[in-house]
Amino acid sequence: MSQSGVLYVGKMKQLLAGEDPEQIVVRFTDAASAFNHVKQAVIAGKGRVTCAISSWICDYLKRHGVKTHFLEQRGECDQLCRKVQVIPLEVITRNVIAGTISSYLGVEEGSRPENTLYELCLKNDELDDPLINDHHAVALGIVTYEELKEIYALTAQINELLVDLFAQIGIELVDFKVEFGRMNDGTIVLADEVSPDTCRLWDKATGERLDRDRFRYDLGHVREAYEEILNRLQKLN
Amino acid sequence: MSQSGVLYVGKMKQLLAGEDPEQIVVRFTDAASAFNHVKQAVIAGKGRVTCAISSWICDYLKRHGVKTHFLEQRGECDQLCRKVQVIPLEVITRNVIAGTISSYLGVEEGSRPENTLYELCLKNDELDDPLINDHHAVALGIVTYEELKEIYALTAQINELLVDLFAQIGIELVDFKVEFGRMNDGTIVLADEVSPDTCRLWDKATGERLDRDRFRYDLGHVREAYEEILNRLQKLN
Repeated sequence: MSQSGVLYVGKMKQLLAGEDPEQIVVRFTDAASAFNHVKQAVIAGKGRVTCAISSWICDYLKRHGVKTHFLEQRGECDQLCRKVQVIPLEVITRNVIAGTISSYLGVEEGSRPENTLYELCLKNDELDDPLINDHHAVALGIVTYEELKEIYALTAQINELLVDLFAQIGIELVDFKVEFGRMNDGTIVLADEVSPDTCRLWDKATGERLDRDRFRYDLGHVREAYEEILNRLQKLN
Repeated sequence: MSQSGVLYVGKMKQLLAGEDPEQIVVRFTDAASAFNHVKQAVIAGKGRVTCAISSWICDYLKRHGVKTHFLEQRGECDQLCRKVQVIPLEVITRNVIAGTISSYLGVEEGSRPENTLYELCLKNDELDDPLINDHHAVALGIVTYEELKEIYALTAQINELLVDLFAQIGIELVDFKVEFGRMNDGTIVLADEVSPDTCRLWDKATGERLDRDRFRYDLGHVREAYEEILNRLQKLN
Protein backbone atom coordinates (compact mmCIF):
# COMPACT_ATOMS: atom_id res chain seq x y z
CA MET A 1 0.00 0.00 0.00
CA SER A 2 1.47 3.34 -1.03
CA GLN A 3 1.85 6.20 1.43
CA SER A 4 -0.86 8.11 -0.39
CA GLY A 5 -3.17 5.09 -0.66
CA VAL A 6 -6.73 5.00 0.56
CA LEU A 7 -6.87 3.16 3.88
CA TYR A 8 -10.60 3.18 4.39
CA VAL A 9 -13.69 4.45 2.60
CA GLY A 10 -16.42 5.57 4.98
CA LYS A 11 -19.93 6.79 4.29
CA MET A 12 -18.94 10.43 3.97
CA LYS A 13 -15.16 10.43 4.48
CA GLN A 14 -12.08 8.60 3.33
CA LEU A 15 -8.94 7.88 5.30
CA LEU A 16 -5.64 8.11 3.43
CA ALA A 17 -2.13 7.29 4.56
CA GLY A 18 -0.10 10.35 5.55
CA GLU A 19 3.51 10.99 4.52
CA ASP A 20 4.46 10.35 8.13
CA PRO A 21 3.44 6.80 9.12
CA GLU A 22 2.17 8.19 12.44
CA GLN A 23 -0.30 10.43 10.60
CA ILE A 24 -3.36 9.98 8.43
CA VAL A 25 -5.33 12.25 6.13
CA VAL A 26 -9.08 12.49 6.61
CA ARG A 27 -10.76 13.49 3.33
CA PHE A 28 -14.24 15.00 3.46
CA THR A 29 -16.25 13.96 0.39
CA ASP A 30 -19.46 15.39 -1.08
CA ALA A 31 -21.34 12.20 -0.10
CA ALA A 32 -24.38 12.54 2.12
CA SER A 33 -25.66 9.49 3.97
CA ALA A 34 -28.37 8.80 6.53
CA PHE A 35 -30.15 5.97 8.28
CA ASN A 36 -27.13 3.65 8.07
CA HIS A 37 -26.58 3.87 4.27
CA VAL A 38 -30.30 3.62 3.45
CA LYS A 39 -30.42 7.17 2.11
CA GLN A 40 -27.50 8.42 0.06
CA ALA A 41 -26.75 11.37 -2.18
CA VAL A 42 -23.99 13.63 -3.42
CA ILE A 43 -24.19 17.30 -2.48
CA ALA A 44 -21.65 19.33 -4.44
CA GLY A 45 -19.44 21.39 -2.16
CA LYS A 46 -20.47 19.64 1.05
CA GLY A 47 -17.01 18.11 1.56
CA ARG A 48 -15.31 21.49 1.44
CA VAL A 49 -17.68 23.27 3.82
CA THR A 50 -17.85 20.34 6.26
CA CYS A 51 -14.07 20.12 6.34
CA ALA A 52 -13.80 23.86 6.99
CA ILE A 53 -16.32 23.73 9.85
CA SER A 54 -14.77 20.67 11.43
CA SER A 55 -11.27 22.13 11.19
CA TRP A 56 -12.43 25.42 12.69
CA ILE A 57 -14.09 23.60 15.61
CA CYS A 58 -11.29 21.10 16.20
CA ASP A 59 -8.83 24.00 16.31
CA TYR A 60 -11.07 25.70 18.88
CA LEU A 61 -11.31 22.51 20.97
CA LYS A 62 -7.52 22.07 20.83
CA ARG A 63 -6.93 25.65 21.91
CA HIS A 64 -9.21 24.93 24.89
CA GLY A 65 -7.26 21.88 25.97
CA VAL A 66 -9.22 19.01 24.40
CA LYS A 67 -6.99 16.08 23.50
CA THR A 68 -7.64 15.31 19.83
CA HIS A 69 -6.13 13.48 16.87
CA PHE A 70 -6.59 16.64 14.76
CA LEU A 71 -3.41 18.38 13.62
CA GLU A 72 -4.38 20.84 10.86
CA GLN A 73 -6.42 21.39 7.73
CA ARG A 74 -4.64 20.56 4.47
CA GLY A 75 -6.10 21.96 1.28
CA GLU A 76 -9.87 22.37 0.93
CA CYS A 77 -11.16 18.95 1.94
CA ASP A 78 -8.43 17.27 3.98
CA GLN A 79 -7.43 17.14 7.64
CA LEU A 80 -4.04 15.92 8.77
CA CYS A 81 -4.53 13.83 11.91
CA ARG A 82 -2.53 11.65 14.26
CA LYS A 83 -2.97 7.98 13.55
CA VAL A 84 -4.78 6.39 16.48
CA GLN A 85 -6.39 3.07 17.25
CA VAL A 86 -10.07 3.81 16.74
CA ILE A 87 -12.42 2.69 19.52
CA PRO A 88 -15.56 1.28 17.82
CA LEU A 89 -18.07 3.25 19.85
CA GLU A 90 -20.24 6.21 18.97
CA VAL A 91 -20.59 8.46 21.99
CA ILE A 92 -23.72 10.56 21.75
CA THR A 93 -24.41 13.59 23.94
CA ARG A 94 -27.89 15.07 24.14
CA ASN A 95 -28.81 18.44 25.60
CA VAL A 96 -32.23 18.29 23.94
CA ILE A 97 -34.09 15.09 23.00
CA ALA A 98 -34.47 14.90 19.22
CA GLY A 99 -34.45 12.37 16.41
CA THR A 100 -35.28 8.68 16.68
CA ILE A 101 -34.47 8.57 20.41
CA SER A 102 -37.67 10.60 21.02
CA SER A 103 -40.02 7.86 19.85
CA TYR A 104 -37.70 5.20 21.29
CA LEU A 105 -38.18 6.72 24.76
CA GLY A 106 -41.75 7.87 24.16
CA VAL A 107 -40.78 11.51 24.72
CA GLU A 108 -41.67 14.53 22.64
CA GLU A 109 -38.96 15.86 20.34
CA GLY A 110 -37.57 19.07 21.80
CA SER A 111 -37.80 17.94 25.44
CA ARG A 112 -35.05 19.49 27.52
CA PRO A 113 -34.14 17.18 30.42
CA GLU A 114 -32.33 18.68 33.40
CA ASN A 115 -29.48 16.20 33.04
CA THR A 116 -27.21 15.78 30.03
CA LEU A 117 -27.73 12.43 28.30
CA TYR A 118 -24.77 10.35 27.22
CA GLU A 119 -25.19 7.21 25.11
CA LEU A 120 -22.93 4.57 23.70
CA CYS A 121 -23.67 2.89 20.39
CA LEU A 122 -21.66 -0.04 19.13
CA LYS A 123 -20.14 0.85 15.74
CA ASN A 124 -21.34 -2.10 13.72
CA ASP A 125 -23.24 -1.52 10.48
CA GLU A 126 -24.51 -5.10 10.33
CA LEU A 127 -26.08 -4.72 13.77
CA ASP A 128 -27.26 -1.19 12.87
CA ASP A 129 -25.10 0.51 15.54
CA PRO A 130 -27.16 -0.67 18.52
CA LEU A 131 -27.49 1.36 21.73
CA ILE A 132 -25.44 -0.37 24.42
CA ASN A 133 -24.30 0.49 27.93
CA ASP A 134 -20.95 0.60 29.71
CA HIS A 135 -21.11 -3.04 30.80
CA HIS A 136 -21.71 -4.25 27.23
CA ALA A 137 -18.79 -2.19 25.94
CA VAL A 138 -16.49 -3.71 28.58
CA ALA A 139 -17.83 -7.26 28.03
CA LEU A 140 -17.20 -6.89 24.29
CA GLY A 141 -13.56 -6.07 25.07
CA ILE A 142 -13.82 -2.64 23.46
CA VAL A 143 -12.84 -0.54 26.49
CA THR A 144 -12.15 -0.84 30.20
CA TYR A 145 -14.31 0.86 32.83
CA GLU A 146 -11.32 3.15 33.48
CA GLU A 147 -11.22 4.19 29.81
CA LEU A 148 -14.95 4.85 29.83
CA LYS A 149 -14.46 7.27 32.71
CA GLU A 150 -11.88 9.12 30.58
CA ILE A 151 -14.19 9.06 27.56
CA TYR A 152 -17.13 10.52 29.50
CA ALA A 153 -14.94 13.21 31.04
CA LEU A 154 -13.62 14.19 27.59
CA THR A 155 -17.14 14.14 26.15
CA ALA A 156 -18.47 16.39 28.92
CA GLN A 157 -15.57 18.79 28.35
CA ILE A 158 -16.30 18.86 24.61
CA ASN A 159 -20.03 19.39 25.21
CA GLU A 160 -19.41 22.34 27.51
CA LEU A 161 -17.07 23.98 25.00
CA LEU A 162 -19.39 23.34 22.05
CA VAL A 163 -22.56 24.53 23.81
CA ASP A 164 -20.72 27.75 24.60
CA LEU A 165 -19.27 28.13 21.09
CA PHE A 166 -22.59 27.56 19.32
CA ALA A 167 -24.41 29.89 21.72
CA GLN A 168 -22.04 32.63 20.55
CA ILE A 169 -23.35 32.21 17.00
CA GLY A 170 -27.02 31.92 17.95
CA ILE A 171 -27.20 28.15 17.70
CA GLU A 172 -28.47 25.59 20.20
CA LEU A 173 -26.37 22.44 20.31
CA VAL A 174 -29.11 19.80 20.52
CA ASP A 175 -26.89 16.73 20.35
CA PHE A 176 -23.71 15.41 18.79
CA LYS A 177 -21.86 12.18 18.12
CA VAL A 178 -18.13 11.69 18.59
CA GLU A 179 -15.72 8.81 18.40
CA PHE A 180 -12.48 8.36 20.24
CA GLY A 181 -9.12 6.71 19.64
CA ARG A 182 -6.16 5.45 21.62
CA MET A 183 -2.67 6.91 21.13
CA ASN A 184 0.32 4.59 21.36
CA ASP A 185 0.73 5.40 25.05
CA GLY A 186 -2.94 4.58 25.70
CA THR A 187 -4.09 8.19 26.00
CA ILE A 188 -7.63 8.58 24.74
CA VAL A 189 -8.22 11.40 22.27
CA LEU A 190 -11.10 12.74 20.20
CA ALA A 191 -10.84 11.03 16.80
CA ASP A 192 -13.75 12.44 14.86
CA GLU A 193 -15.06 15.42 12.96
CA VAL A 194 -17.39 17.93 14.59
CA SER A 195 -19.73 19.35 11.97
CA PRO A 196 -23.40 19.62 10.97
CA ASP A 197 -23.03 16.01 9.80
CA THR A 198 -22.49 14.89 13.41
CA CYS A 199 -24.32 17.57 15.46
CA ARG A 200 -27.94 18.71 15.59
CA LEU A 201 -27.83 22.50 15.41
CA TRP A 202 -30.99 24.55 15.83
CA ASP A 203 -31.08 28.27 15.17
CA LYS A 204 -31.98 29.86 18.50
CA ALA A 205 -34.05 32.63 16.92
CA THR A 206 -36.00 30.70 14.28
CA GLY A 207 -35.72 27.06 15.39
CA GLU A 208 -34.45 26.26 11.89
CA ARG A 209 -32.36 23.09 11.61
CA LEU A 210 -28.90 23.78 10.25
CA ASP A 211 -27.60 20.22 10.18
CA ARG A 212 -27.86 16.80 8.57
CA ASP A 213 -31.56 16.57 9.47
CA ARG A 214 -32.07 18.80 6.39
CA PHE A 215 -30.83 15.85 4.36
CA ARG A 216 -32.44 13.13 6.52
CA TYR A 217 -35.89 14.67 6.31
CA ASP A 218 -35.71 16.32 2.85
CA LEU A 219 -35.79 19.86 4.17
CA GLY A 220 -33.62 21.09 1.30
CA HIS A 221 -30.77 23.63 1.27
CA VAL A 222 -28.35 21.28 2.96
CA ARG A 223 -25.16 22.95 1.76
CA GLU A 224 -26.58 26.43 2.36
CA ALA A 225 -27.32 25.53 5.98
CA TYR A 226 -23.76 24.24 6.44
CA GLU A 227 -22.41 27.43 4.80
CA GLU A 228 -24.47 29.46 7.25
CA ILE A 229 -22.78 27.69 10.20
CA LEU A 230 -19.35 28.24 8.66
CA ASN A 231 -20.03 31.94 8.01
CA ARG A 232 -21.17 32.54 11.56
CA LEU A 233 -18.12 30.73 12.96
CA GLN A 234 -15.72 32.67 10.75
CA LYS A 235 -17.19 35.96 11.96
CA LEU A 236 -15.96 35.01 15.46
CA ASN A 237 -12.35 35.10 14.33
CA MET B 1 -62.67 -0.84 45.53
CA SER B 2 -63.04 -3.58 48.17
CA GLN B 3 -60.06 -4.66 50.32
CA SER B 4 -59.98 -7.97 48.47
CA GLY B 5 -60.30 -6.37 45.02
CA VAL B 6 -57.92 -6.90 42.14
CA LEU B 7 -55.63 -3.88 41.82
CA TYR B 8 -53.78 -4.93 38.70
CA VAL B 9 -53.72 -7.85 36.28
CA GLY B 10 -50.26 -8.56 34.92
CA LYS B 11 -49.11 -11.06 32.33
CA MET B 12 -48.53 -13.84 34.84
CA LYS B 13 -49.52 -12.34 38.19
CA GLN B 14 -52.29 -10.35 39.77
CA LEU B 15 -52.03 -7.77 42.51
CA LEU B 16 -54.80 -7.73 45.10
CA ALA B 17 -55.44 -5.34 47.95
CA GLY B 18 -54.33 -6.68 51.33
CA GLU B 19 -56.35 -6.46 54.55
CA ASP B 20 -53.81 -3.94 55.78
CA PRO B 21 -53.77 -0.93 53.39
CA GLU B 22 -49.97 -0.93 53.62
CA GLN B 23 -49.87 -4.44 52.19
CA ILE B 24 -50.74 -6.14 48.90
CA VAL B 25 -51.21 -9.73 47.83
CA VAL B 26 -49.29 -10.97 44.81
CA ARG B 27 -51.14 -13.89 43.20
CA PHE B 28 -49.19 -16.24 40.93
CA THR B 29 -51.43 -17.51 38.12
CA ASP B 30 -50.98 -20.43 35.72
CA ALA B 31 -50.53 -18.02 32.80
CA ALA B 32 -47.34 -18.26 30.77
CA SER B 33 -46.30 -15.34 28.59
CA ALA B 34 -43.31 -14.49 26.43
CA PHE B 35 -42.09 -11.94 23.91
CA ASN B 36 -44.18 -9.13 25.39
CA HIS B 37 -47.59 -10.90 25.22
CA VAL B 38 -46.99 -12.35 21.74
CA LYS B 39 -46.91 -15.92 23.04
CA GLN B 40 -49.35 -16.92 25.75
CA ALA B 41 -50.56 -20.12 27.33
CA VAL B 42 -51.89 -21.62 30.52
CA ILE B 43 -49.76 -24.25 32.25
CA ALA B 44 -51.71 -25.96 35.01
CA GLY B 45 -49.88 -25.85 38.33
CA LYS B 46 -47.32 -23.25 37.25
CA GLY B 47 -48.72 -20.59 39.61
CA ARG B 48 -48.33 -22.85 42.64
CA VAL B 49 -44.78 -23.97 41.90
CA THR B 50 -43.61 -20.49 40.85
CA CYS B 51 -45.04 -18.99 44.04
CA ALA B 52 -43.31 -21.65 46.13
CA ILE B 53 -39.93 -21.06 44.46
CA SER B 54 -40.21 -17.30 44.67
CA SER B 55 -41.25 -17.42 48.33
CA TRP B 56 -38.38 -19.80 49.15
CA ILE B 57 -35.87 -17.50 47.43
CA CYS B 58 -37.28 -14.23 48.80
CA ASP B 59 -37.12 -15.71 52.30
CA TYR B 60 -33.49 -16.64 51.66
CA LEU B 61 -32.69 -13.15 50.37
CA LYS B 62 -34.39 -11.55 53.38
CA ARG B 63 -32.46 -13.78 55.79
CA HIS B 64 -29.28 -12.56 54.08
CA GLY B 65 -30.12 -8.90 54.55
CA VAL B 66 -31.70 -7.97 51.22
CA LYS B 67 -34.32 -5.25 51.57
CA THR B 68 -37.50 -6.57 49.95
CA HIS B 69 -41.24 -5.96 49.81
CA PHE B 70 -41.80 -9.69 50.48
CA LEU B 71 -43.40 -10.57 53.82
CA GLU B 72 -44.57 -14.20 53.59
CA GLN B 73 -46.29 -16.80 51.49
CA ARG B 74 -50.07 -17.06 51.99
CA GLY B 75 -51.77 -20.20 50.77
CA GLU B 76 -50.51 -21.96 47.65
CA CYS B 77 -50.32 -19.14 45.14
CA ASP B 78 -50.16 -15.87 47.10
CA GLN B 79 -47.45 -13.74 48.61
CA LEU B 80 -48.16 -11.06 51.17
CA CYS B 81 -45.99 -8.04 50.39
CA ARG B 82 -45.46 -4.49 51.55
CA LYS B 83 -47.15 -1.97 49.30
CA VAL B 84 -44.48 0.10 47.58
CA GLN B 85 -44.34 2.63 44.79
CA VAL B 86 -43.14 0.54 41.87
CA ILE B 87 -40.23 1.97 39.86
CA PRO B 88 -40.99 1.28 36.17
CA LEU B 89 -37.62 -0.22 35.33
CA GLU B 90 -36.57 -3.79 34.67
CA VAL B 91 -33.07 -4.32 36.01
CA ILE B 92 -31.38 -7.21 34.24
CA THR B 93 -28.21 -8.89 35.50
CA ARG B 94 -26.21 -11.16 33.23
CA ASN B 95 -23.48 -13.54 34.30
CA VAL B 96 -23.65 -15.35 30.95
CA ILE B 97 -24.84 -13.81 27.69
CA ALA B 98 -28.01 -15.56 26.52
CA GLY B 99 -31.29 -14.81 24.81
CA THR B 100 -32.00 -11.95 22.41
CA ILE B 101 -29.15 -9.83 23.78
CA SER B 102 -26.71 -12.27 22.09
CA SER B 103 -27.76 -11.39 18.56
CA TYR B 104 -28.31 -7.77 19.58
CA LEU B 105 -24.62 -7.54 20.56
CA GLY B 106 -23.40 -9.96 17.90
CA VAL B 107 -22.05 -12.32 20.56
CA GLU B 108 -22.46 -16.08 20.79
CA GLU B 109 -25.03 -17.32 23.31
CA GLY B 110 -23.22 -18.78 26.29
CA SER B 111 -20.36 -16.24 26.27
CA ARG B 112 -19.08 -15.61 29.78
CA PRO B 113 -17.73 -12.06 30.05
CA GLU B 114 -15.34 -11.26 32.91
CA ASN B 115 -17.57 -8.45 34.13
CA THR B 116 -21.16 -8.75 35.28
CA LEU B 117 -23.59 -7.01 32.94
CA TYR B 118 -26.36 -4.82 34.30
CA GLU B 119 -29.06 -3.40 32.06
CA LEU B 120 -32.05 -1.13 32.50
CA CYS B 121 -35.18 -1.57 30.43
CA LEU B 122 -38.01 0.90 30.54
CA LYS B 123 -41.19 -0.88 31.61
CA ASN B 124 -43.48 0.17 28.79
CA ASP B 125 -45.35 -2.46 26.80
CA GLU B 126 -46.21 -0.04 24.00
CA LEU B 127 -42.53 0.73 23.49
CA ASP B 128 -41.65 -2.96 23.95
CA ASP B 129 -39.61 -2.38 27.14
CA PRO B 130 -36.66 -0.71 25.39
CA LEU B 131 -33.09 -0.97 26.68
CA ILE B 132 -32.14 2.40 28.17
CA ASN B 133 -29.26 3.72 30.23
CA ASP B 134 -28.94 5.60 33.50
CA HIS B 135 -29.17 9.02 31.89
CA HIS B 136 -32.42 8.12 30.10
CA ALA B 137 -33.94 6.83 33.35
CA VAL B 138 -33.07 10.09 35.11
CA ALA B 139 -34.23 12.27 32.19
CA LEU B 140 -37.56 10.43 32.18
CA GLY B 141 -37.98 11.36 35.85
CA ILE B 142 -38.11 7.70 36.93
CA VAL B 143 -35.16 7.75 39.35
CA THR B 144 -32.33 9.97 40.52
CA TYR B 145 -28.67 9.10 39.97
CA GLU B 146 -28.47 8.53 43.72
CA GLU B 147 -31.32 5.99 43.60
CA LEU B 148 -29.67 4.20 40.69
CA LYS B 149 -26.55 3.74 42.81
CA GLU B 150 -28.72 2.11 45.49
CA ILE B 151 -30.49 -0.04 42.88
CA TYR B 152 -27.20 -1.30 41.39
CA ALA B 153 -25.79 -2.05 44.85
CA LEU B 154 -28.93 -4.02 45.77
CA THR B 155 -28.86 -5.85 42.44
CA ALA B 156 -25.21 -6.83 42.88
CA GLN B 157 -25.98 -8.08 46.40
CA ILE B 158 -28.90 -10.14 45.08
CA ASN B 159 -26.80 -11.55 42.23
CA GLU B 160 -24.05 -12.65 44.58
CA LEU B 161 -26.53 -14.39 46.88
CA LEU B 162 -28.41 -16.03 44.02
CA VAL B 163 -25.29 -17.24 42.18
CA ASP B 164 -24.22 -18.88 45.42
CA LEU B 165 -27.65 -20.35 46.15
CA PHE B 166 -28.13 -21.83 42.70
CA ALA B 167 -24.58 -23.21 42.67
CA GLN B 168 -25.55 -25.22 45.77
CA ILE B 169 -28.25 -26.96 43.76
CA GLY B 170 -26.13 -27.53 40.64
CA ILE B 171 -27.57 -24.62 38.67
CA GLU B 172 -25.81 -21.79 36.86
CA LEU B 173 -27.58 -18.46 37.23
CA VAL B 174 -27.27 -17.13 33.68
CA ASP B 175 -29.28 -13.95 34.11
CA PHE B 176 -32.29 -12.56 35.94
CA LYS B 177 -34.67 -9.61 35.90
CA VAL B 178 -35.83 -7.73 38.97
CA GLU B 179 -37.88 -4.66 39.66
CA PHE B 180 -37.67 -2.32 42.61
CA GLY B 181 -40.01 -0.13 44.60
CA ARG B 182 -39.86 2.83 46.96
CA MET B 183 -41.11 2.57 50.54
CA ASN B 184 -42.84 5.59 52.08
CA ASP B 185 -39.53 6.80 53.54
CA GLY B 186 -37.86 6.54 50.11
CA THR B 187 -35.94 3.34 50.87
CA ILE B 188 -35.55 1.23 47.76
CA VAL B 189 -36.50 -2.44 48.09
CA LEU B 190 -36.74 -5.47 45.82
CA ALA B 191 -40.35 -5.58 44.60
CA ASP B 192 -40.44 -8.63 42.36
CA GLU B 193 -40.57 -12.38 42.27
CA VAL B 194 -37.43 -14.46 41.77
CA SER B 195 -38.31 -17.63 39.88
CA PRO B 196 -37.69 -19.56 36.65
CA ASP B 197 -40.07 -17.04 35.05
CA THR B 198 -37.56 -14.24 35.69
CA CYS B 199 -34.20 -16.08 35.77
CA ARG B 200 -32.32 -18.16 33.20
CA LEU B 201 -31.23 -21.30 35.04
CA TRP B 202 -28.97 -23.85 33.36
CA ASP B 203 -28.24 -27.22 34.89
CA LYS B 204 -24.47 -27.25 35.50
CA ALA B 205 -24.10 -30.94 34.69
CA THR B 206 -26.29 -31.26 31.59
CA GLY B 207 -26.70 -27.67 30.34
CA GLU B 208 -30.45 -28.25 30.39
CA ARG B 209 -32.58 -25.10 30.66
CA LEU B 210 -34.81 -25.12 33.71
CA ASP B 211 -36.59 -21.82 33.15
CA ARG B 212 -39.04 -19.86 31.02
CA ASP B 213 -36.94 -20.50 27.89
CA ARG B 214 -38.63 -23.93 27.89
CA PHE B 215 -41.86 -22.08 27.18
CA ARG B 216 -40.33 -19.39 24.95
CA TYR B 217 -38.66 -21.91 22.63
CA ASP B 218 -41.16 -24.80 22.90
CA LEU B 219 -38.78 -27.11 24.73
CA GLY B 220 -41.63 -28.74 26.61
CA HIS B 221 -41.89 -29.88 30.25
CA VAL B 222 -42.15 -26.34 31.59
CA ARG B 223 -43.82 -27.20 34.88
CA GLU B 224 -41.58 -30.23 35.40
CA ALA B 225 -38.51 -28.03 35.05
CA TYR B 226 -39.89 -25.57 37.60
CA GLU B 227 -40.73 -28.48 39.94
CA GLU B 228 -37.14 -29.68 39.60
CA ILE B 229 -35.84 -26.30 40.80
CA LEU B 230 -38.29 -26.31 43.72
CA ASN B 231 -37.34 -29.87 44.74
CA ARG B 232 -33.65 -29.07 44.73
CA LEU B 233 -34.22 -25.91 46.79
CA GLN B 234 -36.36 -27.72 49.34
CA LYS B 235 -33.65 -30.34 49.85
CA LEU B 236 -31.41 -27.52 51.13
CA ASN B 237 -33.73 -26.91 54.06
